[in-house]
Amino acid sequence: MRNLHVANPGQDRSHASGTNGTSDQKRILVGLGDAELDTFFPAGLPGDDERLCWKVLDTKHLDDDSWVEALREFEPEILLSGWSTPKLTEEIIDSPWFKVKYCCHLTGSVRNTLPARAFEKGMLVTNWGRLASTPVAEHALLLTLACLRRLPSWKTVMKLPLDEFIKERADLHTRTLIGKRVGLHGFGFVAREIVRLLKPFEVEISSYSAGVPTEFFREHDVEPADSIEELFANNEVIIECEALTPETQGSVGAELLDLLQPKSVFVNVGRGAVVDEDALVKRIQRGDIRVGLDVYSEEPLPLDSQLHSLKDVLLSPHIAGPTEDVRPRCGLFALENISRYLRDEPLKSQVDLVAYLRST
Amino acid sequence: MRNLHVANPGQDRSHASGTNGTSDQKRILVGLGDAELDTFFPAGLPGDDERLCWKVLDTKHLDDDSWVEALREFEPEILLSGWSTPKLTEEIIDSPWFKVKYCCHLTGSVRNTLPARAFEKGMLVTNWGRLASTPVAEHALLLTLACLRRLPSWKTVMKLPLDEFIKERADLHTRTLIGKRVGLHGFGFVAREIVRLLKPFEVEISSYSAGVPTEFFREHDVEPADSIEELFANNEVIIECEALTPETQGSVGAELLDLLQPKSVFVNVGRGAVVDEDALVKRIQRGDIRVGLDVYSEEPLPLDSQLHSLKDVLLSPHIAGPTEDVRPRCGLFALENISRYLRDEPLKSQVDLVAYLRST
Repeated sequence: MRNLHVANPGQDRSHASGTNGTSDQKRILVGLGDAELDTFFPAGLPGDDERLCWKVLDTKHLDDDSWVEALREFEPEILLSGWSTPKLTEEIIDSPWFKVKYCCHLTGSVRNTLPARAFEKGMLVTNWGRLASTPVAEHALLLTLACLRRLPSWKTVMKLPLDEFIKERADLHTRTLIGKRVGLHGFGFVAREIVRLLKPFEVEISSYSAGVPTEFFREHDVEPADSIEELFANNEVIIECEALTPETQGSVGAELLDLLQPKSVFVNVGRGAVVDEDALVKRIQRGDIRVGLDVYSEEPLPLDSQLHSLKDVLLSPHIAGPTEDVRPRCGLFALENISRYLRDEPLKSQVDLVAYLRST
Repeated sequence: MRNLHVANPGQDRSHASGTNGTSDQKRILVGLGDAELDTFFPAGLPGDDERLCWKVLDTKHLDDDSWVEALREFEPEILLSGWSTPKLTEEIIDSPWFKVKYCCHLTGSVRNTLPARAFEKGMLVTNWGRLASTPVAEHALLLTLACLRRLPSWKTVMKLPLDEFIKERADLHTRTLIGKRVGLHGFGFVAREIVRLLKPFEVEISSYSAGVPTEFFREHDVEPADSIEELFANNEVIIECEALTPETQGSVGAELLDLLQPKSVFVNVGRGAVVDEDALVKRIQRGDIRVGLDVYSEEPLPLDSQLHSLKDVLLSPHIAGPTEDVRPRCGLFALENISRYLRDEPLKSQVDLVAYLRST
């Protein structure tokens, strides 16, 4: 366990205040690993001031007992959490000494950090919000454009002798995104960012996501599809960005995939397990669709998966989320939210129970 | 030489009207190959009507003499031209029997179709205009996003065992386009379409193109760079879309390429010969830049070019122009322009001498 007083770049993070602060100060506990601290806070965390007393736990060598002990001893009102933060169990949350009122989560889903019970007890929770969904939407656009232009075949075509080059280049049957019909399976933050990035392409966007009210789609200039079957049958590009729930798991199976139009594009930047991967492999083997995947049923994708060697498939190693250069922005965003909390101002990118339950 | 009366799909194009039409009709000569006719006019060309008499020449087996003979015999007022149309030489244009007043060019540059003299003699010329520049801009966006996310390394990373996968994925140092500084070398139609497609990415765009007035950049919300050196030094993404002229040929050389920032992206969707390719290879070999190319000094890129095997280079086989599915739109656009000409209405995407001389 390490304490932190002032953590400027290059400075030893183990400087400890050694105290629980003054009675005027609120206490914030940081449960992050070195890699998270370095990439999200390249300029270091702010030091203690009259409002706030900081303690940093290095999550790398943190066991469950030390975690509980730190929470109990330091009695933080604010928790700054991330991918590596140990879970706040229901038992911890229900303990009389537990004082956390605000969980400022650096990254996306808090399902590995908090139980649903945290919301019932009124804990405030924020995450990286739109800062994360825009890069995912950007990656969906990249995979879509790459599939339309047959990127997986470029390398082969580039190395052909002249006569074959001309023939095979014509056989790429490249397509543009301009004016296409695009279907979004899922209508969360990522889908809405995709809608925003696609504006200049003058596409017709429809979407299906069980339980989302019709008016909500229309507010975002998106046509609600009557059914997921209609979505798959009527669009030239399908982007998968639905949340993983017991209902959606494996929901994109053989019957839906058979509805895809010839030359259409299927992209998944959501959760691999929403798609029946065996059915997808079989559909790709039948040919005439173009597929871009960032997520898989099992990650990393097993080396013996047939997906590695299929034609017209572009695979990325689950990198749709915030790119490396976005992390410092997420760090600053979290610090801004902490300042807002201290000033009693409304927080940005607040996560409620509904969002928690729908999160991927 | 083939004549055409009505060319519906599947119909024999050799149906000939056998006449030069009536005195009320204007005459239009089509000089295109089968592949152009099939992809630009999948529903066929319209037939003769009270306003227009058509004649179609198959350019596949057309020699210079037959070309001149057809122009002289048919005396067209309108020429529908494309990639495969033989050139109208100065000699043809200056002949007393030459009557073409409007050249409706299906595709882009007319430099292989018309001499500059055509403009001096007042010929009206149109081409595919924005229909072509949008797909090129789209391809520039694809190459840019692919370079930022290190697409050329994905395949290798995907096939690594777990521990190496995690390390190498982190080493991708992926970047987003959101909020980046983007520099455009060139400020023609393609550059302006890039500006339009990049709107939702909230980038800062600057541009350099010799001779373009400062106000013209500003009208498009683009910051004029004071020099090409400033452009290359101050941006994180450089997109090359400058016209090829004696002044620009080889103008992007070692000194400019040395100004590129670490991790920056260099994309070329303009003309290969604007860049000194040997200097580019040397700059790439020094590392820490990411390069996406669609055009080369010599095309197709020679098989022994070092570009084929360099790390962090993505090569596409000169496919930035209109994708296959855009061609029917270009065909309809040309027919619309012909109708406009017949009704004495202003033409769309008119090409003047300045645009002709600047065209790539």
